[in-house]
Amino acid sequence: MTDTIISSASKEVVLGFERPFVIIGERINPTGRKILAAEMKEGDYSRVKADALAQIAAGAHILDVNAGIPLADEPKILAEVIQLLQSMTDMPLCIDSSIVAALQAGLEVYKGKALVNSVTGEDEQMEQVLPLVKKYGAAVVAISNDETGISQDPDVRFEVAKKIVQRAADYGIPACDVVVDPLVMPVGAVNTSGVQAMKLIHRLRTELKVNTTCGASNISFGLPNRDGINGAFLSMAIHAGMTSAITNPLHTEVIAATLGADVMMGRDPDCMNWIKRFREAPAEGEGARGRRQTRRRA
Amino acid sequence: MTDTIISSASKEVVLGFERPFVIIGERINPTGRKILAAEMKEGDYSRVKADALAQIAAGAHILDVNAGIPLADEPKILAEVIQLLQSMTDMPLCIDSSIVAALQAGLEVYKGKALVNSVTGEDEQMEQVLPLVKKYGAAVVAISNDETGISQDPDVRFEVAKKIVQRAADYGIPACDVVVDPLVMPVGAVNTSGVQAMKLIHRLRTELKVNTTCGASNISFGLPNRDGINGAFLSMAIHAGMTSAITNPLHTEVIAATLGADVMMGRDPDCMNWIKRFREAPAEGEGARGRRQTRRRA
Repeated sequence: MTDTIISSASKEVVLGFERPFVIIGERINPTGRKILAAEMKEGDYSRVKADALAQIAAGAHILDVNAGIPLADEPKILAEVIQLLQSMTDMPLCIDSSIVAALQAGLEVYKGKALVNSVTGEDEQMEQVLPLVKKYGAAVVAISNDETGISQDPDVRFEVAKKIVQRAADYGIPACDVVVDPLVMPVGAVNTSGVQAMKLIHRLRTELKVNTTCGASNISFGLPNRDGINGAFLSMAIHAGMTSAITNPLHTEVIAATLGADVMMGRDPDCMNWIKRFREAPAEGEGARGRRQTRRRA
Repeated sequence: MTDTIISSASKEVVLGFERPFVIIGERINPTGRKILAAEMKEGDYSRVKADALAQIAAGAHILDVNAGIPLADEPKILAEVIQLLQSMTDMPLCIDSSIVAALQAGLEVYKGKALVNSVTGEDEQMEQVLPLVKKYGAAVVAISNDETGISQDPDVRFEVAKKIVQRAADYGIPACDVVVDPLVMPVGAVNTSGVQAMKLIHRLRTELKVNTTCGASNISFGLPNRDGINGAFLSMAIHAGMTSAITNPLHTEVIAATLGADVMMGRDPDCMNWIKRFREAPAEGEGARGRRQTRRRA
């Protein structure tokens, strides 16, 4: 059993093989969101707040926080957003940046045990990020690529993941605090992406025995009915051994696919989570508060 | 490789491990449908026709045909419906009855290689049904229960399936013409049903090396948002090795879960089936002909 504990000051979330699936809400991220980026740059975090509350209401277990805005003071913004979120919710956070100084600024103010997103298998990256993870007693997302790029061969990516886990151990970070991201590529561009992902997730689960996560929406990039592809991917990846995903809980297909998979894997005793969620399903759409009866079958 | 060929006079459908998933449309079945039952009993097959066309339009590959109406002449009705369907469509059929005389009447008039639904592991059943399957060169659905009932232990059900495959061989029916139904129980009643089903499907695929099918909607009986549970079940069962299901193609979640699983398993080259289906998604609801653009993501 491999349990990865992520916490705020007062709340723990655990990733584990026999535990309910963990949804890491992806919405607090200015990438591709011009209005949010402009607001965050000006220190206006009202939309960040609203996104946090909406994702919590929709079923997120952890919130990813990214402040990657061109020409902005990313370390300052990331630290401010983390402090704001920790003042208004007990959700554990995932501190997301490609800039080491921003990760450090975020970790300095964070209360609890954060999930750092992320480190790759590149030596320079590992040398910078892993000591920070150790210093602040955090867990870390390990992305299975290195200086040679992203291999199409899941076995090569497995070896990269293994290297990161070993290097983390050298820094005193146990394997249970390394959450591997198998790197899911768009299946519309690389037709074997689904097969690769399932195979790698299964090896990570059974051989390396680590928890896993991924940017789940990436699988459907460029295809119509993205929610449909995302739902099938999530349910199947959970069957293959995936224990968390960075995704959008506001999409009802994501919630149905992950809670449904929990039911199928025997991780929802008496289907209570499912029944609680869908007996009176919330209306579709972000932030909606209305409720409707689940539609009856013909 | 195990290929199960089911055919009409002019069209073949093949169940196989590396092939796209096969949907057997479940709608032509008067069980629980009072109006349909009354009409079929009177020889009015207009609704049967409509159900056939709607299921074909929705993406069924084979149509299940059941005429189980209390106090009706089931063999006569089943034969008439089969003849009607074969006069209007080239869809291969699954001849579904618990009455041997009805199976025989259906097989007598059927053009092509039918799928007989079903035989259990009970000796008396096997002695009656298997000779018919052999005589008419059909394939058969083998349900993994016997005189002792339905075991909660997937390993016991595996042994029952194995027994039926062996008995079929004694009658000259090859294993590729036995499609095993692992018997999916409602997960709302038996919390381990999903785990049992996945385990059994995987063993049937890897050890007994047979194609599989099941009444997929049964898994969600009694729960809210049945389509959500059914979708998660189908995608995961396909990942575990299931190659067909008897289900309702009019539910868009069923189509998304199965076509999405084909994409994930690398069985939809260039995602062409997915794109064709969802580029302009049909409006929800049975028999709807309207089309709308797939909704864009925020």
